[in-house]
Amino acid sequence: MAAAAPPLKDELDIVIPTIRNLDFLEMWRPFFQPYHLIIVQDGDPSKTIKVPDGFDYELYNRNDINRILGPKASCISFKDSACRCFGYMVSKKKYIFTIDDDCFVAKDPSGKQINALEQHIKNLLCPSTPLFFNTLYEPFRDGSDFVRGYPFSLREGVPTAVSHGLWLNIPDYDAPTQLVKPLERNTKYVDAVLTIPKGTLFPMCGMNLAFDRDLIGPAMYFGLMGDGQPIGRYDDMWAGWCTKVICDHLGLGVKTGLPYIWHSKASNPFVNLKKEYNGIFWQEEIIPFFQAATLSKDSTTVQKCYIELSKQVKEKLGKVDPYFVKLADAMETWIQAWDELNPPTKAK
Amino acid sequence: MAAAAPPLKDELDIVIPTIRNLDFLEMWRPFFQPYHLIIVQDGDPSKTIKVPDGFDYELYNRNDINRILGPKASCISFKDSACRCFGYMVSKKKYIFTIDDDCFVAKDPSGKQINALEQHIKNLLCPSTPLFFNTLYEPFRDGSDFVRGYPFSLREGVPTAVSHGLWLNIPDYDAPTQLVKPLERNTKYVDAVLTIPKGTLFPMCGMNLAFDRDLIGPAMYFGLMGDGQPIGRYDDMWAGWCTKVICDHLGLGVKTGLPYIWHSKASNPFVNLKKEYNGIFWQEEIIPFFQAATLSKDSTTVQKCYIELSKQVKEKLGKVDPYFVKLADAMETWIQAWDELNPPTKAK
Repeated sequence: MAAAAPPLKDELDIVIPTIRNLDFLEMWRPFFQPYHLIIVQDGDPSKTIKVPDGFDYELYNRNDINRILGPKASCISFKDSACRCFGYMVSKKKYIFTIDDDCFVAKDPSGKQINALEQHIKNLLCPSTPLFFNTLYEPFRDGSDFVRGYPFSLREGVPTAVSHGLWLNIPDYDAPTQLVKPLERNTKYVDAVLTIPKGTLFPMCGMNLAFDRDLIGPAMYFGLMGDGQPIGRYDDMWAGWCTKVICDHLGLGVKTGLPYIWHSKASNPFVNLKKEYNGIFWQEEIIPFFQAATLSKDSTTVQKCYIELSKQVKEKLGKVDPYFVKLADAMETWIQAWDELNPPTKAK
Repeated sequence: MAAAAPPLKDELDIVIPTIRNLDFLEMWRPFFQPYHLIIVQDGDPSKTIKVPDGFDYELYNRNDINRILGPKASCISFKDSACRCFGYMVSKKKYIFTIDDDCFVAKDPSGKQINALEQHIKNLLCPSTPLFFNTLYEPFRDGSDFVRGYPFSLREGVPTAVSHGLWLNIPDYDAPTQLVKPLERNTKYVDAVLTIPKGTLFPMCGMNLAFDRDLIGPAMYFGLMGDGQPIGRYDDMWAGWCTKVICDHLGLGVKTGLPYIWHSKASNPFVNLKKEYNGIFWQEEIIPFFQAATLSKDSTTVQKCYIELSKQVKEKLGKVDPYFVKLADAMETWIQAWDELNPPTKAK
């Protein structure tokens, strides 16, 4: 494999939100160095973030975001890794891979280092099967197929928009679970990729995530979190709920499972609880809202879907808390900013 | 573990349909011997089926079925492993495990023999989570839990009605796939159990299957297959579609994944194609039918659900082929026979 050209080298950006020097890239060097990085620097813009030599990157701090988006910069979170979605917006590539800076290369059960990016690309480049469950999981992997009883008309599948990877070591638990199980580590390597069925929501984690920006990019808004907001750690969840509803509506697929990364350090559960407690409360209303959400036939593009969804958020979740009115407005601003930076071309 | 009493020893029957001597039980002896077996002998009733010494069993051949059910025996298939569902009906236990006689003990990646029955019991005795997908799969396994963003109100789950196990070695492929990939073997041990989400259908295979008879038994009818019928190898599929629709309606869960068994021999793809070709054609209409099927609020028991479904089968699938009219009638007969052999008790 070392001799082969890196897949999608010129069609994929790696987006990394960070507040520190990117030493973690050293371990990823064999896999990431051929690709272009978009680094979104959170927090104090006067701080200098060191990037190891040899990586090709562009870096945006808060001043850059404010300069590029002007008043629309209000839709990009500050002091929260939700700011990463700015990187999705300024990318000009078809695919995005985003990873947290506390995520390292994991090993498979044979001890081999896992090229997470390569697996994400595999996931994105083959179809999804959201309309019927295949009990042997991903039918397109080597040695797998559709099982008896799988309708032939559904075997072509649908385009894959999202590839959601998992984590060995520190599992992605909420603060209450972290508090109750401080020592729990994920040691189970589950050798599977599967499509999340149509109509089913899932908790999308932004730590190790890839997507097709052309297919679903404008839905990957990570919301208003962090500084000045009553909530944190729901940025990726929000994006996941919106994305899944829109993928289901547009006939796109979402996969989860492989690849694993090694998640090195558990965040502080007390800090997390403070960030999360509103979300823990609100998600009991948010999830039924998204489970019931339907989009109209006129919503034929991601942007149109997203604007329609934002109106429903304002109307229905606005009753839960005024925060959702603000969030709904930010969703609209996000789309305006997206379209400004990504003007429609005739080719599309 | 060897010292512990076998779980559910007096509450579970193992149902085995067969046409041959049950030598395969030798390999299962350490795991099955404490349990009671119900053997359903298919084909020539004058043939003697040898059961290895030391197993506790009852055996029914076609004469027995005819004697016990009288005219209602018409709902039990002949010359097809679909006849196994007779065993579900005569059992008086709460749980059923059914296995094919070409299925042997598989090994996990560490080389340890897998006690399939024990894993099925674990699956059945802990809740299912059909309303939201957990990305770390079964949250109730050791070392696993619900991930961040999983609504707390849904973490209790729902009772598990079905545990669908998988197969190493010969995968459960249809005839066309067998023909195209004669050498494909399943070597991938996926260390996962997961709940099939509400609203999602799956191809349920009867080779390695357990269920809670009290919760879902009357829906586990394996249809009219084999002798005198225009279709075979859709018995378990039919049961799976009906069961899933009814589980979704009644708020019950269906799990798939572990345990694996070792499936030893591929059936003849040419023979299979002859059995399957109508099913391959019809499933393109059957699956949309089941995907759209809804049951009324009055259908509060499995029996009522099943009768309601049978009427819908007659009305909607009867147009596809007259076979489905006959099948719908057999579904009703099945429920009558079930209720005759399992009269409602005050305790239930």
